[in-house]
Amino acid sequence: MTLKNLTVVMDALKAALTEEQVTINETVRELHGKDESYHALQLPDIVVFPESTQQVSQIMKISNEFKVPVVPFGLGSSLEGHVIPVNGGITIDFSLMNKVLEVKEHDFLVKVQPGVTRTQLNKELKKYGLFFSVDPGADATLGGMVATNASGTTSVKYGVMRDQVRDLEVVLADGLVIHTGNLAAKSSSGLHLNGLFTGSEGTLGCFTEMTLRVYGIPEHVSAARASFPSVNDAVEAVVSILQAGIPVARVELVDEPSIKQVNLYSETTYTEKPTLFLEFHGNEAGLKQDVEFMNEIVLGHGCQEIQFESDTASRNKLWEARHNLAYAFIHGYPGKKMMVTDVCLPISELAGAVAHARENLESMDLIGGIVGHVGDGNFHVLLMMDMNEAEEVAKAGKFNERIVLYALERGGTCTGEHGVGIGKQKYQQQEHGDALRVMEKIKQALDPHNLLNPNKNVKAEKKEAF
Amino acid sequence: MTLKNLTVVMDALKAALTEEQVTINETVRELHGKDESYHALQLPDIVVFPESTQQVSQIMKISNEFKVPVVPFGLGSSLEGHVIPVNGGITIDFSLMNKVLEVKEHDFLVKVQPGVTRTQLNKELKKYGLFFSVDPGADATLGGMVATNASGTTSVKYGVMRDQVRDLEVVLADGLVIHTGNLAAKSSSGLHLNGLFTGSEGTLGCFTEMTLRVYGIPEHVSAARASFPSVNDAVEAVVSILQAGIPVARVELVDEPSIKQVNLYSETTYTEKPTLFLEFHGNEAGLKQDVEFMNEIVLGHGCQEIQFESDTASRNKLWEARHNLAYAFIHGYPGKKMMVTDVCLPISELAGAVAHARENLESMDLIGGIVGHVGDGNFHVLLMMDMNEAEEVAKAGKFNERIVLYALERGGTCTGEHGVGIGKQKYQQQEHGDALRVMEKIKQALDPHNLLNPNKNVKAEKKEAF
Repeated sequence: MTLKNLTVVMDALKAALTEEQVTINETVRELHGKDESYHALQLPDIVVFPESTQQVSQIMKISNEFKVPVVPFGLGSSLEGHVIPVNGGITIDFSLMNKVLEVKEHDFLVKVQPGVTRTQLNKELKKYGLFFSVDPGADATLGGMVATNASGTTSVKYGVMRDQVRDLEVVLADGLVIHTGNLAAKSSSGLHLNGLFTGSEGTLGCFTEMTLRVYGIPEHVSAARASFPSVNDAVEAVVSILQAGIPVARVELVDEPSIKQVNLYSETTYTEKPTLFLEFHGNEAGLKQDVEFMNEIVLGHGCQEIQFESDTASRNKLWEARHNLAYAFIHGYPGKKMMVTDVCLPISELAGAVAHARENLESMDLIGGIVGHVGDGNFHVLLMMDMNEAEEVAKAGKFNERIVLYALERGGTCTGEHGVGIGKQKYQQQEHGDALRVMEKIKQALDPHNLLNPNKNVKAEKKEAF
Repeated sequence: MTLKNLTVVMDALKAALTEEQVTINETVRELHGKDESYHALQLPDIVVFPESTQQVSQIMKISNEFKVPVVPFGLGSSLEGHVIPVNGGITIDFSLMNKVLEVKEHDFLVKVQPGVTRTQLNKELKKYGLFFSVDPGADATLGGMVATNASGTTSVKYGVMRDQVRDLEVVLADGLVIHTGNLAAKSSSGLHLNGLFTGSEGTLGCFTEMTLRVYGIPEHVSAARASFPSVNDAVEAVVSILQAGIPVARVELVDEPSIKQVNLYSETTYTEKPTLFLEFHGNEAGLKQDVEFMNEIVLGHGCQEIQFESDTASRNKLWEARHNLAYAFIHGYPGKKMMVTDVCLPISELAGAVAHARENLESMDLIGGIVGHVGDGNFHVLLMMDMNEAEEVAKAGKFNERIVLYALERGGTCTGEHGVGIGKQKYQQQEHGDALRVMEKIKQALDPHNLLNPNKNVKAEKKEAF
């Protein structure tokens, strides 16, 4: 942005908001120039901190008047560069819009502002005996989680972020405010805008209020940790559990090198074998029967050791190894950055995909652990790389590409839950084919001047024959 | 269509397909001029019976070349006039595209052509120990069910049609063929076209293949029929059951006049009181505990009589009253047509809405029964009216309007599962507000010549300021 434009836009923003809500402070801009990924820093020209829907609408009107791009920003915990303002412009920080507005306990709904984090929400919901199910690794904001269609360990039972969205208040490119849904559990009215805006990564509008589905805290919870001779045995055990119709609430795979890393980091003595972390939610009698059946199944798949826990403290301890994994790698490789792959495949292809990933890690001499939300067919390779070593970075990129192409060739997706952002754009054409033209037409129709988080996820339409 | 145009289009269609697949036969056109609703007959000019995606693509190219509207047609079981060709043109009958293409049992997926009916699919799936969960009243085609985002008695547990769609092969307005999804259980890649095309009622494209989610046949099923002093008691019992976290698979409400109608029609002796029909799916021990807990809850809400069944034959008998309801009314009022209301509300508003509907039935002196998928907050009033009595038709329309406005004022939707078609268009502006402009822009972007089922669901964009 030229200095002249900057001054004009700043004046307009300060008139619409207050002086304090608009800044060009270098440090603040730097905090809004990156996320938790390996993607390079790029600074916004201006950072604004709106306090209301009306202020966000004003910001969009100014963006539209001066043709300045905007990037919505939650906490910057995204993993594919979603919030990096690659075209500069205005970053809208939603940290002042962080209220839980209403808990409608009888309808299992909650209305929140986009800056609320998932742990903040769960703290509030606990008072009502309710919880919010989606749990990505980071304590992300709910606005960011809707924007990327986040998921986590519980989606095998409760679904992904999109399944929880009942209504979004959205400020469109021209400042118009719409509601994408309603409070009913289902609807066949009009086009499904809830689904379209969820996962749109800030490219179609800014969320200012969100009505989300919540669940009753389960009556009983059982957890288990089971180790297997091989990753393949573990994955096949999961397929059998699902086929038996056992309603598993969580089932996470952690591979052998990752367990080793956790033991190193946490000074624990977990068996260094491919391990499944399982959790079951339900009534006491039903859980007992489910867990007995599950036990039989895992033994049939060569399970070498299984440990059960049902009280909260023991369960938390059991899950520690899983939760500490990313930190164990980051802590163990100081100076390196983490690249996280994120493919998701049909479950029948999962064992092959994990084996393929491990073979490539070894043949390419890369350091990394494999963890997976295996009930969904989604797994991550946590890859440690030195960003100053061009060859290492290139190799990691090549590895990621192999993982993605393997998945796409087998009916999978390049991203199960992290989103496209910058990092997965190069695979969009191959994954979506001509459907990408449809997405581009929608982007073009709703953001004709390409102002909303430009060059992320779906880019503006190229003017080609349709 | 002028005779000259008709000849030219017929020639083009016969060249692209075969002579036998294209007809202007009056009887065939009449069969494609209506659905199961009260909406008036209007004939297509031509009916075509494609056998492949490629033929559907050819049809769309011809439609595009000659600017002739098309209407996709499954079995004509829609309830809001979706398949009535209000602008004439070509009706595409999908009855020759009725194959179950692939059962991917390990991935809980099935690939079908759009003309497959839900009972045909379930017959095939049974061989694999699987079932398809969505069960609207009619034995509709799966293409039609995707088009209207259908649901039914099991959506409280398994979700609606949109929740089952993993991928659609769609022929767009210009004949281009796209895939809207993939085979993975979740994805954060691109925009969510699965959700957008599901429920689009033929206005954005024609479905030619669909990959849908299926489920393992539950290990154990328990069913119960419970009668209550009032509708309010019954609905409140359901709210308590849901709040207790009991995972109910079906919970249907049938009101007192409807039970009376069933007794008259089926010569049964069901207790003539507001009745809940419940079903639970799970393992034996878990079900036992769930059903005991449910029993306590319904007794606490004044339940006067409860009957349990778990073997298939007895369960089927138990559900008969529910399934026979529409027929009991149609049979009981020969010469009358049925208008079915379809609002869905937040569950906390359901008891009030049902009471409001009953009051209005009585004060307006209308004949009708109330049934509801109460776990979802969705209920129907089955209204019998003589289409030759203008006053009666007007009164039924007025009643429907009151029901809809009551729902919209309380965060509900004008249609929970039947769709918009012709009948619910008049409520779209009030329900969606400015979000309707977004839907119109999407329609305009994907169907610029307004050829795909014009004047249904979301209409083409009015050229106004956005």
